[in-house]
Amino acid sequence: EDVERASGTANQGEGPYADEPTRHPALIKNSETPCNAEPPLNLLADNFLTPNGIFFIRNHLPVPRVDKQSYRLHIQVPGKEEPVSLSLDELKTKFRPVKVTATLQCAGNRRNELNSVEKVKGLTWGSAAISTAEWKGVRLRDVLTYAGLPESSFLNFDDPYATQHEQDSQTVRHICFEGLDKDPEGKGYGASIPVSKAMNPCGDVILAYEMNGEELPRDHGFPLRVVAPGHVGARNVKWLSKIVASPQESDSHWQKNDYKGFCPSTTWDTIDWDSSPPIQEAPVTSAICDPEPHAIVDRDDEEITLRGYSWSGGGRNVIRVDVSADGGKTWEVAELDEKAKKQPNGQAWAWVPWEANVKIPKDLKFDKEGKAELELCCKATDSSYNTQPESPASVWNLRGVLNNSFHR
Amino acid sequence: EDVERASGTANQGEGPYADEPTRHPALIKNSETPCNAEPPLNLLADNFLTPNGIFFIRNHLPVPRVDKQSYRLHIQVPGKEEPVSLSLDELKTKFRPVKVTATLQCAGNRRNELNSVEKVKGLTWGSAAISTAEWKGVRLRDVLTYAGLPESSFLNFDDPYATQHEQDSQTVRHICFEGLDKDPEGKGYGASIPVSKAMNPCGDVILAYEMNGEELPRDHGFPLRVVAPGHVGARNVKWLSKIVASPQESDSHWQKNDYKGFCPSTTWDTIDWDSSPPIQEAPVTSAICDPEPHAIVDRDDEEITLRGYSWSGGGRNVIRVDVSADGGKTWEVAELDEKAKKQPNGQAWAWVPWEANVKIPKDLKFDKEGKAELELCCKATDSSYNTQPESPASVWNLRGVLNNSFHR
Ligand SMILES: [Mo]
Ligand SMILES: [Mo]
Repeated sequence: EDVERASGTANQGEGPYADEPTRHPALIKNSETPCNAEPPLNLLADNFLTPNGIFFIRNHLPVPRVDKQSYRLHIQVPGKEEPVSLSLDELKTKFRPVKVTATLQCAGNRRNELNSVEKVKGLTWGSAAISTAEWKGVRLRDVLTYAGLPESSFLNFDDPYATQHEQDSQTVRHICFEGLDKDPEGKGYGASIPVSKAMNPCGDVILAYEMNGEELPRDHGFPLRVVAPGHVGARNVKWLSKIVASPQESDSHWQKNDYKGFCPSTTWDTIDWDSSPPIQEAPVTSAICDPEPHAIVDRDDEEITLRGYSWSGGGRNVIRVDVSADGGKTWEVAELDEKAKKQPNGQAWAWVPWEANVKIPKDLKFDKEGKAELELCCKATDSSYNTQPESPASVWNLRGVLNNSFHR
Repeated sequence: EDVERASGTANQGEGPYADEPTRHPALIKNSETPCNAEPPLNLLADNFLTPNGIFFIRNHLPVPRVDKQSYRLHIQVPGKEEPVSLSLDELKTKFRPVKVTATLQCAGNRRNELNSVEKVKGLTWGSAAISTAEWKGVRLRDVLTYAGLPESSFLNFDDPYATQHEQDSQTVRHICFEGLDKDPEGKGYGASIPVSKAMNPCGDVILAYEMNGEELPRDHGFPLRVVAPGHVGARNVKWLSKIVASPQESDSHWQKNDYKGFCPSTTWDTIDWDSSPPIQEAPVTSAICDPEPHAIVDRDDEEITLRGYSWSGGGRNVIRVDVSADGGKTWEVAELDEKAKKQPNGQAWAWVPWEANVKIPKDLKFDKEGKAELELCCKATDSSYNTQPESPASVWNLRGVLNNSFHR
């Protein structure tokens, strides 16, 4: 399948969804309006950089139609009377362009496996709500410095619990983003990241206008989006219209009352959204992309080749992926992609593809046709030696986010 | 038991171990020469700052006898002809003193549980090879800058695999430490940390000469030790004699051929030390300190109070601890220490003590005396939403490091 050339069909939405972009036919849609779609898992493993056409799409609202010429980015920094306003041309010429290769993952990736424990609330994502691109844009740090935020602001560490303290203080601790995608009341999608990430010289947060060498596609935030590498997809605000440097985090629904994890025992009756910090950095994860975890083998097969991805948030690199054909009783070490595994630790923003030739277990029980089902699974370890939990039950949460249990 | 006042007895060692310091009688020794000892787990839970006398001791070699007056710290930076040499007084007066409250944990903490899966190599630590102190000293960053290393060196990210590249380059990527504790051939203990940690303005690495308001005790590195908060104990070199800024990591045994994790299937026949990066940041962990996980309860008991610790490496804060009295089938959320949980995320160097009143499961089977054994366990989640694996089997490794499975 040529994912680059296939042109797809335009979405036949209505009302606010009447002007959605054309989408690649290979995408598997979890919802049409807004569009939420992921590629087939085996296609994902074919490329280190996911082709734009099959890069997973996670929209919360209708895709806005943005005019490149009249587009302005507004930036507010406390203590500055006038907000700064920049055209796309000004952004591209006033600041040095940089490229960052980064993986984005939806917090809901692999939610389907949580439903097998107990039903959760949310779109039923498979394991492909994750993709990688080379993003081109300008450093958020440069833009904020230009707008008057001191370069040393990255030292203002985030304290997720000190709400009162933050309200009393004028210290900038969060960078809030707003998108041009509007809800029925006209409020845009919003999210924020800590200033310690946004202004950090090692944080590599950019405002991107290109994706894999092409102008940013409409589904991915044309003409400008945030790429906050190592952070969950939801903070990488698309169709960016406004940046506010603030003592407080975004008051958006998606920051305050969504995209948070909870104890497996927390219910919709007992949930206290303020008790959990918003998801920012993502935990270590991995998946087998090809074949399916319950692959069928023949009596004559001696080994099977697996391909998959591994990734960790916060710039932590993956140092090892272990694979098993017997449900985790015995393990073999996968071969990590040579180039990806050499990403500098602390700035390892892209996933690490892996491959493994796994021996077929000798004690497998074959049926009359000489077939047997494998119990494939994988787990990754990152540079902080964090690993994945064995089962979805222990990370189960009512909102169904961040399932990073063994992929099986 | 008054851990502050108890004086203990001098160690009656011989040969190189004839001059060991006096140790607190409450310490449980895993080895006498070198001294490796941990406090009783329930004592550990009594204090946020572990009293010096019962702070776990992890020595690799005999404790050196150091004369404060003649002590010198030597610092080598490439491109500088003369190494810098500083007396203790010079260190204390040339640089601004700072205090950092940080937890140190031995990589071998909780090794005993791995032995229940399959025997590992190493000292049989329980769950108390972890302690917390307020350290006072000077910033390593300030000292290295004084010695001629550019302040921006923290941007030279570590690439654990690019050995050849590093050998070819003159770029400083590691800060190597050497201790005054010598092996029989006269070689001191050694270790290194990435320059991205050592020189980072947010890294908080200090050279400490005080511990909880007292002069550094001999067992903890008198007169000067490294405190690299968020990193495994082994990198916090004691009795510090020499610092070398280098393109390469320390060539010490403890850096190259120890303190590394491996796949559960790796054996002493197949081990390739170079295939794993040295442990630096530690993964998220937690433990029940009081009562024992297999506590006995009466038929009349309605709930039981648990106390424990939780901690994560890399400055990541603990955001939640879940506890269970039925082996992980159902969970309750523990109360985190109010002050500790407010540590700024990214610089949360100290552990987070917790307490929980857990309901006794109703379906417990009581014996004739009306007693039953609980299956207590706990697991923590950190600010990157990393969690602990369920069982020691999946993190089992032949060297027995970094067991952070559910504590039970
Ligand atoms: Mo998401
Ligand atoms: Mo250690």
